[in-house]
Amino acid sequence: MDEIDVIVIGAGPAGESAAARCADGGLSVALVEQRLVGGECLYYGCIPSKALIRPGDVLAAARRVPGAAQALTGRLDAREAFARRDELVGEWDDAAQLPAFEEKGVLFVRGPGRIADDRVVDVSTSDGGTRRLTARRAVVLATGTSPAIPPIDGLRRGQVWDNQDATAVKELPERLLVIGGGFIGAEMTQAFRRLGCTQVTVVEEAERLLVAEEPFAGEQVREAFEAEGVDVVTGVRVTAVEQRDTDGPLTATLGDGRRVTADEILVAVGRRAETEGLGLEAIGLTPGGFVEVDGWMRATGVPGGWLYAVGDCNGRALLTHMGKYQGRLAADVIMGKDVPESTTVVPRVTFTDPQVCAVGLTERQARERGLPVRTVTTGTGDVDGAHVLGVGITGTCKLVVDDDRKVLVGATFVGPGMQELLHSATIAIVGELPLATLWQAVPPFPTVSEVWLRLLEAYGL
Amino acid sequence: MDEIDVIVIGAGPAGESAAARCADGGLSVALVEQRLVGGECLYYGCIPSKALIRPGDVLAAARRVPGAAQALTGRLDAREAFARRDELVGEWDDAAQLPAFEEKGVLFVRGPGRIADDRVVDVSTSDGGTRRLTARRAVVLATGTSPAIPPIDGLRRGQVWDNQDATAVKELPERLLVIGGGFIGAEMTQAFRRLGCTQVTVVEEAERLLVAEEPFAGEQVREAFEAEGVDVVTGVRVTAVEQRDTDGPLTATLGDGRRVTADEILVAVGRRAETEGLGLEAIGLTPGGFVEVDGWMRATGVPGGWLYAVGDCNGRALLTHMGKYQGRLAADVIMGKDVPESTTVVPRVTFTDPQVCAVGLTERQARERGLPVRTVTTGTGDVDGAHVLGVGITGTCKLVVDDDRKVLVGATFVGPGMQELLHSATIAIVGELPLATLWQAVPPFPTVSEVWLRLLEAYGL
Repeated sequence: MDEIDVIVIGAGPAGESAAARCADGGLSVALVEQRLVGGECLYYGCIPSKALIRPGDVLAAARRVPGAAQALTGRLDAREAFARRDELVGEWDDAAQLPAFEEKGVLFVRGPGRIADDRVVDVSTSDGGTRRLTARRAVVLATGTSPAIPPIDGLRRGQVWDNQDATAVKELPERLLVIGGGFIGAEMTQAFRRLGCTQVTVVEEAERLLVAEEPFAGEQVREAFEAEGVDVVTGVRVTAVEQRDTDGPLTATLGDGRRVTADEILVAVGRRAETEGLGLEAIGLTPGGFVEVDGWMRATGVPGGWLYAVGDCNGRALLTHMGKYQGRLAADVIMGKDVPESTTVVPRVTFTDPQVCAVGLTERQARERGLPVRTVTTGTGDVDGAHVLGVGITGTCKLVVDDDRKVLVGATFVGPGMQELLHSATIAIVGELPLATLWQAVPPFPTVSEVWLRLLEAYGL
Repeated sequence: MDEIDVIVIGAGPAGESAAARCADGGLSVALVEQRLVGGECLYYGCIPSKALIRPGDVLAAARRVPGAAQALTGRLDAREAFARRDELVGEWDDAAQLPAFEEKGVLFVRGPGRIADDRVVDVSTSDGGTRRLTARRAVVLATGTSPAIPPIDGLRRGQVWDNQDATAVKELPERLLVIGGGFIGAEMTQAFRRLGCTQVTVVEEAERLLVAEEPFAGEQVREAFEAEGVDVVTGVRVTAVEQRDTDGPLTATLGDGRRVTADEILVAVGRRAETEGLGLEAIGLTPGGFVEVDGWMRATGVPGGWLYAVGDCNGRALLTHMGKYQGRLAADVIMGKDVPESTTVVPRVTFTDPQVCAVGLTERQARERGLPVRTVTTGTGDVDGAHVLGVGITGTCKLVVDDDRKVLVGATFVGPGMQELLHSATIAIVGELPLATLWQAVPPFPTVSEVWLRLLEAYGL
């Protein structure tokens, strides 16, 4: 039996962060992973999806620039994009990920981990045996999520694509139907259209795409999609899916009676916690759901406070960067550092074109919390910094302000290439800086950051 | 004689900002301009230079992306870039600029303004007459700068290009020599090379390009320039310029004996205040130099505090955004608002590829001020956010920290497309946020903003 300070189950970004930080802090660490070290994000999430998005995105940016557009006489090469994707995901092999942990002295154990008792984890190994690990300090769950399959008549896992199939695509389908217009669905819709699918349809049950964000975000993304020839259907469910021949086309029936035939259907309607088979029942927790944690990532209802859950499996914010943050936080708590409770300020980037970058509360969320809300908006394309980036840049930027405290509680930036601007708002919100202080931060000219100036002027500064 | 609350002399970005804000605040305003409303920035500075830079920049970004690079089978079209530039500068006609001021009730007076006495400005009008304006509250100088011509043997204004000639270029020279490797010189060097000049040489007297910034910035820009076939010469002066035939090529002799022949020479070695002929001597100030101001933009040594100077002509920070900021600040002071002294935190963006984006103090400046400095650096290209942007992204990011107060005092980001990331550092510095607070601001994945995470980790967070 191995006794070790910390056992981390799940080696995606959240688990990796927790393990690495504990090891850097001098603790002995075991990292347990039954699939690939690097997790969904590296192999089937952020990384390959961005590899598929980037070629179309940068070409669209160039097409907006007179002088550059004339150089685009060829076409996007999907096979080259796939090859770059393959390279970025390390050909779906995690051999390159292991040395960094070995250098830190982390014990890597391949196989599914299962909690057998307080602080005790059994790992089923490939030889059919079981390796028992005991944690002196903590067990950290970082097992992530898997795609949810909705109860649609005729729809079976295996017959349709999930995010893994879409991001690992080798052959472009002619026609693609995307069920779900959240951020994964929206990103993949546009990426596949730009990679060369001749027909892409996205169906979202809610009244708009990206329904969790400010209403204008989903509307502006819809306009952009439609201008590129994507068929966007909102406020309608898919009620049935039929497939006559295995490997043949699929036909979806929508709630309004429409039928859409496609060569592949991507289902992107949410994620469920990967917490089955982890032995949670042995310690009085319920398997299958998200593991509830406190502000320091300690699983609630577990006496002794030895169990932590970080990343997607705790359901707090299903985003790689938040998982990594939680991993760092849990590590600090385990190491006995006096650290503040987890931030509730969550930045979100949807890598469509226009990008939707948001942080903190939407106006609706702020009002639901009873905050004294005042909002201001400005056009992304109205600043000189947008004019010099290209022709026809549009989008809206919005601040949500607590009007009593005169501090920012939320921000949304829609436009091309806003992904790096977002962090300014995150810092402003986390720092609870008064708007009068933000007014002293001068955005450089001519950049899109000047939307800050317009927004604060609109507020009355 | 017209009596008016505020007279603004100079309608570049700084003067425009002051005039617009005073008018918005209910004051009567006269705006005096002898040349074009919009100023150097709009017609011969930021705007046309960025229009010339952008096509090469976005194509370079696309060339780094497998899948997108294959679409670049054509060439950058300089004539299309020039046409877009012409459009962005309004064909060097300011007719489109005037209505916004008319709507605000601003009295526009075309002609050179001259201070005749306390609060009294005479404007020479096109009919040969003089219009006398008297200010009830304030006169704001916003006359900007003009290019300095260095004392080089044989070099005459008119024979060489300044920023106006370069940004207004109609025909690309085959060979270009740029004297001066500051931000204007560096930007134009690369822009002209990418627009199609077959030979571009830049000569900088200091030991490196962009000498005011962190040393690695100029070195990394140099490497990029050389990789694109630009000849970079540093630590050497141009000692003489010869031109046999008018309109023929020019030959420069360098301090090391080298001779460089070019079809045009761009001189970009600094700026001098446009403060001659303004009547400064009438109120006891010295014409020709920068107008010294206090932290509220009031000219020092002028009894009664009625004279302000904003933008380049006060010499504080020769950058459009700082001029605009100063214009807003002066307007607030004139309107009697209780506003804090001018920020000393100046963001700077050099729109080369890689971009050099910096704010606050460099390490050297911080040490010269006796601050307890600690610095951390990280590679721009080491974050996943850079990997997904393209192949071969390099550059360095650096934070300069006051190690006693644990707050940021300076930051530099070198890499492609960092222009929007900079504002996060500006807000952090202006807000004097502790590093522990910045640690709670989570950069989204996968963006280049994750350099923040690496930098703070390197600091020990």
